[in-house]
Amino acid sequence: MVRVPFEELRARIEGILLALGVGKRSALAAQLIAETDRDGIRTHGIARLPRFAEMVRLRRIDPRAEPERIASFGALERWNGHRGPGNLAAHAAMNRAMELARANGLGAVALANTTHWMRGGSYGWQAAEAGFAAMCWSNTLPNLPPWGATTPAVGNNPLVIAVPRRDAAGHGAPIVLDIAMSQFSYGTLSAYRERGELLPFPGGFDEHGELTRDPAAIERTQRALPIGLWKGSGLAFVLDVLGTMLADGRATCEIPNDPLQEVGQSQIFIAMAPSALTSIEELNRIAAGAIDFLHAASPATPGGIVRYPGEGTLRIREENMQLGVAVDEAAWKVLKKLESEKPES
Amino acid sequence: MVRVPFEELRARIEGILLALGVGKRSALAAQLIAETDRDGIRTHGIARLPRFAEMVRLRRIDPRAEPERIASFGALERWNGHRGPGNLAAHAAMNRAMELARANGLGAVALANTTHWMRGGSYGWQAAEAGFAAMCWSNTLPNLPPWGATTPAVGNNPLVIAVPRRDAAGHGAPIVLDIAMSQFSYGTLSAYRERGELLPFPGGFDEHGELTRDPAAIERTQRALPIGLWKGSGLAFVLDVLGTMLADGRATCEIPNDPLQEVGQSQIFIAMAPSALTSIEELNRIAAGAIDFLHAASPATPGGIVRYPGEGTLRIREENMQLGVAVDEAAWKVLKKLESEKPES
Repeated sequence: MVRVPFEELRARIEGILLALGVGKRSALAAQLIAETDRDGIRTHGIARLPRFAEMVRLRRIDPRAEPERIASFGALERWNGHRGPGNLAAHAAMNRAMELARANGLGAVALANTTHWMRGGSYGWQAAEAGFAAMCWSNTLPNLPPWGATTPAVGNNPLVIAVPRRDAAGHGAPIVLDIAMSQFSYGTLSAYRERGELLPFPGGFDEHGELTRDPAAIERTQRALPIGLWKGSGLAFVLDVLGTMLADGRATCEIPNDPLQEVGQSQIFIAMAPSALTSIEELNRIAAGAIDFLHAASPATPGGIVRYPGEGTLRIREENMQLGVAVDEAAWKVLKKLESEKPES
Repeated sequence: MVRVPFEELRARIEGILLALGVGKRSALAAQLIAETDRDGIRTHGIARLPRFAEMVRLRRIDPRAEPERIASFGALERWNGHRGPGNLAAHAAMNRAMELARANGLGAVALANTTHWMRGGSYGWQAAEAGFAAMCWSNTLPNLPPWGATTPAVGNNPLVIAVPRRDAAGHGAPIVLDIAMSQFSYGTLSAYRERGELLPFPGGFDEHGELTRDPAAIERTQRALPIGLWKGSGLAFVLDVLGTMLADGRATCEIPNDPLQEVGQSQIFIAMAPSALTSIEELNRIAAGAIDFLHAASPATPGGIVRYPGEGTLRIREENMQLGVAVDEAAWKVLKKLESEKPES
């Protein structure tokens, strides 16, 4: 592991994006990616840059394409991402949803024809730090067998729910849930396999159709477990259909099951303004009460801590800002390799 | 099991509600309860009437109280349920959310100070059958240990997502997901225990902190498993905080952990109008494509069927309308006992 000062990391990512043709929006895109590593979500930050670069070279992502509003009715809008950088389109969509919520109490942007948004939690933090609650989700390629099936037919759709909050000292400390629909991601499975470890809990099915903690067995069957078994399977399905309807975009079944061809996703960004009806003090009182109650639960292991979603993030963020962002050696090498490459264009 | 014609069931429930003082809204409340048994959700229909009656007698539910709008900003409204019958308040809230969505593309009603809504799916079907997509949820008393804890500190909050749809024959066939945050309800645990069966999958922790399929062990520890382990635990928490903030109502931590005192819940009803931007034909095409893709997945057991959320409901509904609604002998006796009781008032 290496420690890289946040600003250096951000600037180097920006350089790579500029070389790939993202243009002046590279600064924002680099900020979002660097923040992902800064927050400790190493699977979704610079680790995803090589695939982004490859998809730009393959002309599956158009680095200059900007999202465009194509239809609107009241507080509901539909945008077309034109297959530009997915994190920029998602950031713009959440910004617009917040504008709609500022005027209407809540607002939604349905974004069709976009590309991978990288870290979904980014847009939850974005809204919560601006004082809005938010709910957003994306569909994905079909990579998860629905409950009762052995072949993939739903997406591992990420779902983000964020709530604004200030802590007792007045610092922003939002509650941000960022979950995908499988119990463990394939990235997590391979990490456990490489360390020669069993999963802490069953994560999918083996060749005999039995639940297993063996990551390699699940990689072989490709039968990862949906969260809550039939419940997460149903949730993945209904989020896909609802998002696709609102966006009039591609459903999971229309996205090729190949990560390098995973484009055209449908995404939903809903912003809500609880502060339109309630004082900030009262909102913070509600959050503090729920958090105190959670923290007072008896831990299952001595000295264990029961955390709310997002609670760990702020500590990791602080550490990474003080010591430099923790980056895997391998990821750092890949970043340097990307810097040395000339784009084809 | 007895078979009771739907109209007889509905009328007998209405009689009980009239005697309890629900007044002229008894017809709608009885309809919602009878439909719950008609749809095969036997845990949440007439099985819940005795508790409702008891809470009316204890004056914890006010049978005549009607929900009231107390604040509004654009497409977001806040209502107070005044602790009236929870299913009537929820039905009114979803109706209002649909009116807001008709005018604004989407709309939300945050309902504070209500009581148990009985079957959450009712309000999803209500919206979808009227052509709207919907998302609604309720908090509950604290009956579920959050991930990493042995004592309850989150609610088994039900979450409903519904999508309107007509099938190829033009019949209403919405997609309706209705899930609570624990893998198995306590009602399911006791049913397995009474039959002397193990759960099909681990449903909680035993006395040694190990995952178990033994329903009695989970009943003893009261450590039911959240769906998706830490993921469902986080989802339960954030739905509670967000709902409480929007409603400015009671959070789970403020609701006594006693079913007879479970009043004052906060609930959110969001309606969305995909048809404001897209033709009904296109919406049905999207749903049909996703369903066909799901149905084409290879079943895990020979002849098995992969179903979308709500798919089983229509078949059960049809059977119960043809043969009479299937009612457990015990529930039928309880219903007759309720009919014979005179209210205290």
